[in-house]
Formats: sequence, C-alpha cells, structure tokens
Amino acid sequence: MSRSPISFELQARDGEARAGLLHTAHGTIQTPVFAPVGTLATVKAVTPRDLTDISAELILANTYHLYLRPGDDVVAEFGGLHRFMAWDGPILTDSGGFQVWSLGSVNEIDDDGVTFQSHIDGSRHRFTPEKAIQVQQNLGADIIMAFDQLADSTDEAVSRLAMDRTHRWAERCQTAWTNRSSQALFGIVQGGIFDQLRAESARTLVAMDFPGYAVGGLSVGESKEDMKRVLETVTPLLPGDKPRYLMGVGTIEDLIIGVARGIDMFDCVLPTRVARHGAALTSAGQLNLRKADYARDPRPLDESCDCYVCRNFSRAYIRHVVRSKEIIASILLSIHNLRMLIQLTEDMRAAIHAGRFAEFARERLERLQGLAAESEN
Amino acid sequence: MSRSPISFELQARDGEARAGLLHTAHGTIQTPVFAPVGTLATVKAVTPRDLTDISAELILANTYHLYLRPGDDVVAEFGGLHRFMAWDGPILTDSGGFQVWSLGSVNEIDDDGVTFQSHIDGSRHRFTPEKAIQVQQNLGADIIMAFDQLADSTDEAVSRLAMDRTHRWAERCQTAWTNRSSQALFGIVQGGIFDQLRAESARTLVAMDFPGYAVGGLSVGESKEDMKRVLETVTPLLPGDKPRYLMGVGTIEDLIIGVARGIDMFDCVLPTRVARHGAALTSAGQLNLRKADYARDPRPLDESCDCYVCRNFSRAYIRHVVRSKEIIASILLSIHNLRMLIQLTEDMRAAIHAGRFAEFARERLERLQGLAAESEN
Repeated sequence: MSRSPISFELQARDGEARAGLLHTAHGTIQTPVFAPVGTLATVKAVTPRDLTDISAELILANTYHLYLRPGDDVVAEFGGLHRFMAWDGPILTDSGGFQVWSLGSVNEIDDDGVTFQSHIDGSRHRFTPEKAIQVQQNLGADIIMAFDQLADSTDEAVSRLAMDRTHRWAERCQTAWTNRSSQALFGIVQGGIFDQLRAESARTLVAMDFPGYAVGGLSVGESKEDMKRVLETVTPLLPGDKPRYLMGVGTIEDLIIGVARGIDMFDCVLPTRVARHGAALTSAGQLNLRKADYARDPRPLDESCDCYVCRNFSRAYIRHVVRSKEIIASILLSIHNLRMLIQLTEDMRAAIHAGRFAEFARERLERLQGLAAESEN
Repeated sequence: MSRSPISFELQARDGEARAGLLHTAHGTIQTPVFAPVGTLATVKAVTPRDLTDISAELILANTYHLYLRPGDDVVAEFGGLHRFMAWDGPILTDSGGFQVWSLGSVNEIDDDGVTFQSHIDGSRHRFTPEKAIQVQQNLGADIIMAFDQLADSTDEAVSRLAMDRTHRWAERCQTAWTNRSSQALFGIVQGGIFDQLRAESARTLVAMDFPGYAVGGLSVGESKEDMKRVLETVTPLLPGDKPRYLMGVGTIEDLIIGVARGIDMFDCVLPTRVARHGAALTSAGQLNLRKADYARDPRPLDESCDCYVCRNFSRAYIRHVVRSKEIIASILLSIHNLRMLIQLTEDMRAAIHAGRFAEFARERLERLQGLAAESEN
C-alpha cells in the first residue's frame, strides 16, 4: 500500500474538542476548519485571492455539478481543479451522492448505482461508486468522498437499507480508488438518527481503514438533539488519529456543537447563500441588510470581525448596495460571512489549546441566544 | 480666491498627445487616465481594493443616481463618497445632466432648470445648476462638473440653444460652487458636431477660467470623423496647463483617438457593462466568452495583459463561469476589462514620454483592425 497523501496530527484535546494539523499536498490545514463551498469551481462571488485573504484553508467543490458542467474531462485536461479554478490550497470534492438525490430527478436506483436526470437539461446519466471515484479522480481534489445513498433519516428500516448499501458502495469505492498517492478517500457514516445504526456504520467503516471519516445525513431537518446524540454516538468510535468531517454543517451554533463533540471539518453553502440574499452572519445572530434600520447605521457588520468588509464599510453602505442590487453586495457579504465562520474556527482552536473550550462555547452560544431572546420581545 | 484643490503638471508632449500629473487632495493621477465608473458608489462587481490592484487612479460616480439613492445627505453624513465607498483615491462626479436626459423622464425644462421623474419610482425632482452643485458638494468628490444641457447634437439650431443655456448654467454653477478649496469644478464644452459652436463654447468657458475642461456630447452616436474633427477644433483652444476630459469615452480605439488629439482624461461604463454580458476587451478586439470556441482554450483573455485574471485563469474557465452564470464571471471580466484600458493609458503615457506615440497608436489600431478584418472573413 502506498503512503497516504494526507496525515493528521492531533495537537490538543479539551474534552472531546480537538485542535490539529491536517497535512495535504497543497498545504497544511489547521483544524477545526470550515470549508467554503465552491460548487461549480468557484466559491460564489469570491475570488481565490479573497479566499486566501480570509484565511480559507480548504474549499469544497461538487462532483455532480462539475461532472455536468464543464465536465470532469475538461477539468482534467486543465490539470485538475486546483489549476482550473486558480486555487492552490487544499480542495475536497463530495461524491455527488447528495446532489443526485436533492437536485437531479432519480429514475432508477439499484444495488449497482443510480440513474438520474440532469437538473440543467434533463439528460440521463448514471452514477455508480466506480463512476463517482473516476470523476473525482479527474477533478483531482486532495480529499475525495465515497459514494453514499441518502435516505429518509427518520425511518429506521429505510435508514438500514441505505446504510448497508452505503457500506457496500464504500468497499467498491476503495477498490476503484487508484490515485491513492495523491488523493485521500473518506468513508461516510450513515444511519439516520438511529444510534444503533450509526454505531454499526462507524464500526464497519473504521474496519475498512479510510484516511478520514465523514458523518453524512445530518443537518437535513432532524432536531438539534438528534444531531448532538448522533455525534456523541459516532465520534468516540472513530480513530483518534484520523480527521472527522461533519458534512453540510455551517451555522455558528452547529460548528460549536460539532467541535464540542470531536468534529474537525465542516462545509456549508449557508454563508454565501444568505449573503446573496442580503444577510450577514454576526456573533449576535443574522442581520437582514434590507431593513431600513440600517440606512444610517455607521457600524461595521460585526464589531468583532477583522475582515476587509468590517474594516472598511458601514452597514449603511452595505444596505445601500443590497437595496440597489449591486454585485458588490454579494461580494462583500460573502467575504464577511465566510470570514465569520473561519474566524470562529480559529477562536475555537485557540480556546482548545488554552484548555478553555467549554467556557468559550458557552459564552458564544449565550451571545447568539441573547439576540434571539431580544428578537422575540 | 482660494488656491485650486487640483493642479496639473504637463510633463511631456508628443504631437498633440500629452503626459502629465494631476495632483489632487486624494493623490496624484498620472495622465492620460481612464476612470472606471462607479455609478452608485460601487464600480460594478469590483471592490475598491481590486481597483487599487489594477492601478485605477480616478473613479467616477453619478450624481443623479446617488441623489436618488441613498441620497446625497446620507453620503454627506458618512463623511462623503471617499469614506462611504471606502475608496481613498481621487473621485470625479458628473453633474447629473446626462442621466436626467437619458434615464429620467423629463417633464419640464426651462432656463432655470429641469423637472424630471425618477427612473426608480416615478417621483418628481428638480435639478438646477445650483442644485447640481449642492448635491456634488455633499458627495464630496475631488472633481465636480458643471450642470449642462444635452441636445440632439446633429441639429445646429437645437445645439446652439442648448450650448447657450449650458454657458449660462456654467456661470451659475461657478457662483454656487463654495467648496473651492476642496473640490475643482470643470466646465463642459458643448455644441454638437458643429465646429463653429464648439469653438465658441470652448472660448466662452475658457474665459470663465475653470480648473479643468470637459468635452461633452460626444460618443452619443455621431460618426468617428465628427468626433475627431470636434476634438481637433476644441483642444487647441483649451489652456495647456489645465486637464482635458472626454466624457463617456471608453473603447481602446477612442482612447487612442482622444489622446492623439490632446485629451487627458476618460471614463466609460463600457468595460464593466460588457463584462457583465460575458465579453472581454482584448488588444485584438472583443471576445464573446459565451462561444463554445473557448470551451477548451487554455490561453488567458489577453496574452499581453498583466492582470490577476490573465495571470491565473484560462478562457476555458471564464467561459465555464460565464455559461454557469456565476458572479465570478462578472468580477473577473470587469477586473480584466478595466485593466486593459488602464494598461493602455499607461502604455500611451510611456510612448508619449519616449516620443513615439504616433507609432504606438498606429500599431495598436492596426492590431484591432486586423482582428476586425479577420472576423469579417
């Protein structure tokens, strides 16, 4: 077996919370890490140099989208995603599984794979575990994901079937994975909201010895309590010397919840999506910049934020450009929102190193809930 | 009289072409200069720091737009445009005259001013020379413009009436202009395509002794020959020690034509507007990045361009993001297109200093026409 293209160095633990270094061929990631999502080989409204400026250390791109457009063959011809999108830092691609279910129209699913129609033009395509790996090898990310089946997470029988299939597919992905010296394949723990299934899934995948593990099928509508319990079930079963990735999670609250339960990696479209709708993430909650309240507000979006936007622009200016539908509104809000989450991961990391993570988490959650309480009045 | 807040230093002449330095309170502008247009206090899709990166030395903002939204009083409350939009370099505002005619619906025009309806909500407003100056003083740009009347430039009687009124309004603007120590007021030469009117307009305004002079009413549909002839009539009548500004002009060809006839300053929405429609300016003509031709084209937009975009991205990538309607397409094409024109002004400046402007102009125009000829085949 060839040497893994990534290695994880655990630096500090504070309770279940971990601070570490994830070494990749495109640089070292400090964990916990939040990965901005660059669906179509662009983090929407943010240039790669602006990503560097906000200290993004990992970005995610979507296999399903890039397979359809421009085509993974085109990306491969251009030397892979890093060169194609001019981002020289670490990249992770998902397997396409989630998008096949959420965006495409599924025509047929069987043990071999999924036939679906493109959300763009209705054309028919088939993804199998082998195909998902082949596409991801063409894209060339540092971290790639096993092809999994999503299912209604609240039905135990359905969750079991999907989980079992996910495990069989994980094995096929391992076999198909030939770029082992340059790409690390993560297994995805499934099992819905059921502790027994989640534990079984974690044990099964750990036995397959992946370079890293993701927790999938969360943040899809389940309760906060279910999410916490599943994480508390799964992470203790995962090896301490491998990175752990909670897929699709990206609010301030959920990042804190995840890190408190031993998660190292996160990604989510939320910060850039709400930005395009005129909303700012702040340590005291979300601001809707469309509101007239901000028309003459000289404050930055968040007093504690160190980003370019908060150092230079008032809420009044941002409100003006949001209202005028100017592209710069999406640019500035995306930069700020991403920086808020990245800064949060940096602060959590520092708190873990200092052995005061619990206190930090309590203080930050109270600040968020304080505003929530105020808004209700 | 207080000292002018700007001063122009003529450094070199080569034929009629001039290289100089225009000193302002917000920095020195090297001329010839091309000013990106930031209509609503944002150069569309480009952040101020990206403007600095492409060596933009002057930007333009629109009085009509900012008066309507967010309101010049709001901008004034925030310390003026520089602070409001986080651009610390020189700014020029137009008078609103052009937009009142082209965007608003004019209800009434008389010797005193213009009553018009907002293009946003139909509300009624009145601009007079005094009002245009007051709004521009609130906005706080380094260079402000006299309020002028636009008219059909091909009808001599109509052009004369509009010109005479523009002269009377220029006097009223001078009287209303009280911020003389921090803002420089430019007069605008009008007179349509008629040499005699243009000469009369230039002489009348020069007698009023403005800190700088603009040529208005060009690039509005007249022939290239008319534009050249008008410039050849006007610029020799303008004082050699004051800057000359050709309003609304911004193609590679027209910048060369203008500089060859003694123009120092330009502005135009063209580079950012075509960017949002997926087109790139290049030294060999305009590229439509929607075309399938570029799907696998590894070249930068322009081989001779030094911008961030050309150093990092292929035409294939740009075509992919244009086709996917990603915001980064507008960002990257706007940055590149602006840099193309700014780089052109830098190259013209160097050619003037080296005494080889005529040769430079010929070579660049031939490169453009070469492509035009090819496209016709």
